[in-house]
Amino acid sequence: MRAHVIDALPAPGGQCIALYPDKPIYDIPAVPVCTGRELVARLLEQIRPFAPSMHLSQLVTEVIPQADQSIHVRTSAGLSFVTQTLFIAGGVGAFLPRALALPGIQAFSGTQLHTAPSLPPPGQHIIILGQSDTALEHAIALHQHGGCASITVIHRRDQFDANQATVLAFAALRQDHHVSFIAAQATGFEHRNNRLTALHLATTQGHPLTLPADSLYTYLGLSPKLGPIADWGLNLDHKQIPVDPTTFQTHTPRLYAVGDINTYPHKKKLILCGFHEATMSAHHAADQLRPESAGPLQYTTTSKKLHQLLGLIPDPAST
Amino acid sequence: MRAHVIDALPAPGGQCIALYPDKPIYDIPAVPVCTGRELVARLLEQIRPFAPSMHLSQLVTEVIPQADQSIHVRTSAGLSFVTQTLFIAGGVGAFLPRALALPGIQAFSGTQLHTAPSLPPPGQHIIILGQSDTALEHAIALHQHGGCASITVIHRRDQFDANQATVLAFAALRQDHHVSFIAAQATGFEHRNNRLTALHLATTQGHPLTLPADSLYTYLGLSPKLGPIADWGLNLDHKQIPVDPTTFQTHTPRLYAVGDINTYPHKKKLILCGFHEATMSAHHAADQLRPESAGPLQYTTTSKKLHQLLGLIPDPAST
Repeated sequence: MRAHVIDALPAPGGQCIALYPDKPIYDIPAVPVCTGRELVARLLEQIRPFAPSMHLSQLVTEVIPQADQSIHVRTSAGLSFVTQTLFIAGGVGAFLPRALALPGIQAFSGTQLHTAPSLPPPGQHIIILGQSDTALEHAIALHQHGGCASITVIHRRDQFDANQATVLAFAALRQDHHVSFIAAQATGFEHRNNRLTALHLATTQGHPLTLPADSLYTYLGLSPKLGPIADWGLNLDHKQIPVDPTTFQTHTPRLYAVGDINTYPHKKKLILCGFHEATMSAHHAADQLRPESAGPLQYTTTSKKLHQLLGLIPDPAST
Repeated sequence: MRAHVIDALPAPGGQCIALYPDKPIYDIPAVPVCTGRELVARLLEQIRPFAPSMHLSQLVTEVIPQADQSIHVRTSAGLSFVTQTLFIAGGVGAFLPRALALPGIQAFSGTQLHTAPSLPPPGQHIIILGQSDTALEHAIALHQHGGCASITVIHRRDQFDANQATVLAFAALRQDHHVSFIAAQATGFEHRNNRLTALHLATTQGHPLTLPADSLYTYLGLSPKLGPIADWGLNLDHKQIPVDPTTFQTHTPRLYAVGDINTYPHKKKLILCGFHEATMSAHHAADQLRPESAGPLQYTTTSKKLHQLLGLIPDPAST
C-alpha cells in the first residue's frame, strides 16, 4: 500500500512546525526532550523508506464517498484522487494566512491584496504589513528589482521576528531611504472605481496617517481554519469529528480521523495519542481493504517483510 | 501523585530487556531505530524527574480491592501497600526462571535444586545447567571459593551466550581441570531417602551418563508466567484482562490494565499503543482521585506546573 499526503502548509509538520517549531516538548515517549522542528525531522527520517507522495501548499476541498466505497478527493491546486481509504489528520484545521481584519478589503483579494510575494507592475506604491522574514525579504527583493514608486513596511512595533542578516539588510535600506518603515496599525482604506487607492493607519504614537496604496501585501502569520472539512457531512461535534475509539473510523466507512481533529470519550489532544490513533486506523483500514492478508501482527524486530519494506534486506518484489 | 513500581525482574524494562535487549526496534514513533535496551534507557531518563520508587525482583502476589475503594497489594518479598489506584502492566506475565523439565525434580526446589547462585556446603558434587553469564560466573565463583568435590557445567552445545572475558576465564579453568563441561541434556535423576543423589544425562553424541549431584543449579533463561494475576478476579479472556478502550479501566474501579496484558476490540500488542494506554489510564485515574483538579489538559511545551515537575524551573512547593 502507498500513501499520498496532502497539506495546506508548504512543508510537513502541522502545528509542530507552524505553532511551536522551537519550543521543547517533553512528553514524546522515549524522547526526553525535542523541539517541534526536531520531532518532525525524526518522523520524516522514520517514514523515508516508505516514500509517501507529498502534495503540499494545498487544501483538500472536496471529499465525496462513492457508491462503490471509493472516495473522490479534490484539492485547491486542482489535483484529484480516487482512494480506497482516507485519513483526516486535520489538527485544529488548515493553517492559512491570517486575513487583514478591515471590513470590505477582502474584495481586493487576488488583485491588489496579496498574502504571498509577487512582483507588482512598475510605478506602484507598495505597502507590506508584517514583521517576518517573508515581509522583510519581500521589501528587499522589490527594492532590488526596482521600479516601485514607494515601498513601505508597516508593523505595530519597530521590532522584527526575522533572521539577523535579513533584519540588518532591511535596516540598511531604511537608512538610505530606499524603503520606509512605519510603526502603525491599519484602520481603514480608500477606494475609487473598484480600485484600492490608500490605506488608513494609526501610528503607535496615536496619530492618523493615510498612505497611497496600489498593492498591499499582508504577512500576518498563519491561523488555523477548519475550512472545507465542515462541509463533508461528518457530523461534527464542536468542530471535532466523532470516531469509534478502537478503529478511529468516522461514521463513513473507510474514512478515518486521527489526532487533534477527532473526538471520542476521554479524548486527550496529545501527540502520543495521535501516534496510537494513526497506527490503529491504518491497521483497521488495511484489514478492511485486504481481509485475505489480515493475519497475526508482525513486529519490526523480527518480521522479514517489514525489514524488506524498511530497506534493511533486499526486497525480492522490487527486483 | 507518586508512583511505586513493582516488577518480578531485577531491573525495569520487561520484555524489552528480558526478550530482545539487543534487537533493533523500528516502530517507536520519532525514534527511527533503537534496541530494547536503548528504549528502556531513554524511558528511564525521561521519568527520572518523577523518581518513582522501584520494588524489583518480586511478584505481586495479592491484589484485594477494599470496601472503601482502596486496594491492598502484597508482594512475594513481603512488602504490602494500600493504594488508591493500581495499574497492571504485566505484559505476557512475570518473567520467572524457566523450570527444569524433569517430572518430580521440583520436590527438591529450594533444598538441592536452585535457580539463583548460592554457596553450597563443602564437599558437594555441584552441577550447573546453563550457558549464560550467570552459569559461568557461578562456576568460577565456586572454584574460587573452594571446597567442592566437583563442579560440572552442562549445556547441550559447547557454546556460551556470555561475555568474552567470562568465557575465557571459564575455558582456563576447564583446561586446568578445575571445572568440567559436558555437552549433554538432563534426562532423569536418582534420589534416596528424600535426597537427590545423581543426574542422568544424554550426551550430545547420544551416550547415557550418570553424574553424582548434591546441589543442582539451573540457569535456563526466563519464561513468562501469568502467575497470581489469574487469581485476582479480573474476568480473564485468553489470559488477557478486558478493559474499557477509552480509560483502560478493568471491571474493578480504579484498577487499570495497560500494554500487552489487556484486551479490547482491535487491540494490537505494540509498544506505542502501550504508551497511549498508560497515558489515558493515568489521566482517568487522576481525574477520578482528584475531580477538583481535573481541568483543561496542560502541555509540556507551555505548562509552568509541568516545568516545575520536570525540574526545569524551581518548584515553590518544594522549598
